[in-house]
Amino acid sequence: MAKLNHHFSKLSNNYLFPEIEKRIATYRQKTPNARLMDLGIGDITQPIPASAVSALVEAAQEMGKPGHFRGYGPSEGYPFLRETIASNEYGKLGINIDPSEIFVSDGAQSDIANFQELFCTDNRIAIADPTYPVYLDSNVIAGRTRALLKTGRQGGVTYLPCTESNGFKPETPSVQVDLIYLCFPNNPTGVTIDRPLLKEWVDYARKNQAVILLDGAYSAFITDENAPKSIYEIEGAREVAVEFRTFSKSAGFTGLRCSYTVVPKDLKIYDYGKVHSLHALWKRRHDTKFNGVAYPIQRAAAALFTPQGQKEVQGLVGSYLERARLFRQGLSALGYTAYGGKDCPYIWCKTPEQVSSWDFFDYLLEEHKIVSIPGSGFGQAGEGFIRFSAFADPSSLGEALQRLKAG
Amino acid sequence: MAKLNHHFSKLSNNYLFPEIEKRIATYRQKTPNARLMDLGIGDITQPIPASAVSALVEAAQEMGKPGHFRGYGPSEGYPFLRETIASNEYGKLGINIDPSEIFVSDGAQSDIANFQELFCTDNRIAIADPTYPVYLDSNVIAGRTRALLKTGRQGGVTYLPCTESNGFKPETPSVQVDLIYLCFPNNPTGVTIDRPLLKEWVDYARKNQAVILLDGAYSAFITDENAPKSIYEIEGAREVAVEFRTFSKSAGFTGLRCSYTVVPKDLKIYDYGKVHSLHALWKRRHDTKFNGVAYPIQRAAAALFTPQGQKEVQGLVGSYLERARLFRQGLSALGYTAYGGKDCPYIWCKTPEQVSSWDFFDYLLEEHKIVSIPGSGFGQAGEGFIRFSAFADPSSLGEALQRLKAG
Repeated sequence: MAKLNHHFSKLSNNYLFPEIEKRIATYRQKTPNARLMDLGIGDITQPIPASAVSALVEAAQEMGKPGHFRGYGPSEGYPFLRETIASNEYGKLGINIDPSEIFVSDGAQSDIANFQELFCTDNRIAIADPTYPVYLDSNVIAGRTRALLKTGRQGGVTYLPCTESNGFKPETPSVQVDLIYLCFPNNPTGVTIDRPLLKEWVDYARKNQAVILLDGAYSAFITDENAPKSIYEIEGAREVAVEFRTFSKSAGFTGLRCSYTVVPKDLKIYDYGKVHSLHALWKRRHDTKFNGVAYPIQRAAAALFTPQGQKEVQGLVGSYLERARLFRQGLSALGYTAYGGKDCPYIWCKTPEQVSSWDFFDYLLEEHKIVSIPGSGFGQAGEGFIRFSAFADPSSLGEALQRLKAG
Repeated sequence: MAKLNHHFSKLSNNYLFPEIEKRIATYRQKTPNARLMDLGIGDITQPIPASAVSALVEAAQEMGKPGHFRGYGPSEGYPFLRETIASNEYGKLGINIDPSEIFVSDGAQSDIANFQELFCTDNRIAIADPTYPVYLDSNVIAGRTRALLKTGRQGGVTYLPCTESNGFKPETPSVQVDLIYLCFPNNPTGVTIDRPLLKEWVDYARKNQAVILLDGAYSAFITDENAPKSIYEIEGAREVAVEFRTFSKSAGFTGLRCSYTVVPKDLKIYDYGKVHSLHALWKRRHDTKFNGVAYPIQRAAAALFTPQGQKEVQGLVGSYLERARLFRQGLSALGYTAYGGKDCPYIWCKTPEQVSSWDFFDYLLEEHKIVSIPGSGFGQAGEGFIRFSAFADPSSLGEALQRLKAG
């Protein structure tokens, strides 16, 4: 008899985004003519850069030509893309990352969800709270958490509260943990970290032989000069950290699916005394369970690093940050307490009068026809907050402010 | 201290294909001017159909236009593709598969490697021997096998020998197994199964509440009228079988990455008494760990089902099968015992005089400059065989026969 992976039953019944879609669908049924302002899901709203389109078209045409098309590529990505990432994203910051340490993938989400497979189930994980739900859910499915607690939290997990009192910056725990999920700039708070605090994390990991899995999906949006663009700016990080990056948000690739993961060759993993290379293991996992990203998509990603591509990406990033700035300003002017939005296009807005996240979500949807994301969906410490996405188009952002103002 | 998933150490040190690449590289270093005939890895050698190129170009251009580009799509694929697959691949065979039962993915390899996550680790798996190594390796990594045996086999696995004596057709076991990996037409033997024998498997699974994971990567090549094109032709299969399909081989999509998995809603999974829907679980897994296939790639796949696309795919499939027929005929004329090649472009060739697979591989490489795949790389019952791929271009196949003839 085929038996279920019973760890699935520990997941909350509804993954956050489908639950939101369900509530929207219910609302639309009641009021089919309502014009909703969607400031919810962090999807891009501007087309992909022209340089990426040209490269995609050209590569598509190559695929139809004898002598030019490409079949299976290397599962870890084509050298042309890995090399340009290494030199542009790291070399220019003075960071030494070899192209062979870069694994091209179809999404930061899948890579960060899959990476835990390299570790045995009795590692203890630490995650920021609130944060992107995939880190925790992928570990629950894998059986790395214990029984669900009465509080609704997963047993055997070290939660790192990110609250107003610590400026939404997770602090190193006093207990020993093995796998540490960090996200800077953090989704959903939109807040990033400065070098001294990130150095504390690297030092903690070195001292405890822990591994940091750093989700840098929003790193392109960092403007604060005191905030590191990459964890490898910190001394010793090559020994303890994996970094996940994506073209989804900075270049509008959410519908094209291309990302990359950096696994430095200095990174070690332990097996009761024996030492192994995490790089070799991830390569083995990649070869077995993944077959690379479509060639035309890799060409499109590489085109982002041409001078024209860089200009276009900077334009996109700048415009989203400008939207975030204006929206946060507007919220503040209306009396809301809002965070984030400076190094990331997410605004982390406190609900008024201690209303719960879901109640405020429902209120915004039903009274103002505004879609947001309830902060509690990202973890219990997100309760009492709501996430707005400034990826939304300026007219929606403006209209949303108008509606809130009109009360 | 971060601790390794120690199951990785049970994997054979080298995944088959990288080991082959290593031997080729060593040979090339010794004889840099040798002109190799590559009949090894089953990669396509003809460009993708013109209809797919056009659709890819058009969708790429859409991605650059305000109001036309697409961001995140549904993780399980766009309705336009799921609907056309359901009607063309199943409806036309008289099989009732609903579009919602089809999950679009980036490769049959990744899906079939990931699907085991839905099951707990104490399910017993059965796999054909020889077969595609990913089924076993993904279960080893997940910890679903026991200690490595002295024989080199994985403990706790039921191997289903596919040998000359049973016509390379795996038979239902006398013991009880829970998850059954089947591949028809089988990689590497190139041999498929007829309806009565597949019905035995479906009946076995129904009786034992087992789940069949059927890899149909080569189903488009089936010519035998007695062989089912889909497992859902068999009564009751909807209750016990998942089917994996890909556009890689039939439409030359190995470099574009698009596949699909059928999970019927009738398929149940057990959790110590409780019954769950496998469809809902796979959807949950997809939402958490996968973010869909690139929109332009899905458009390219959908274009394969237009009248023009179907004509082009039939042309590709027919030409590969013709190559296989001629090559197998040529091998037989030279005195080799060769199987397969009728319903799949793989030829399963017996090594002469009981030479081992790897020795024959080395002999072919060094004496004839022909690249093949050693049968033992697909399982112990593959020892004494070699796989030739007739995806290779006709001049390579012809030249390889000439070289073998010249001795």
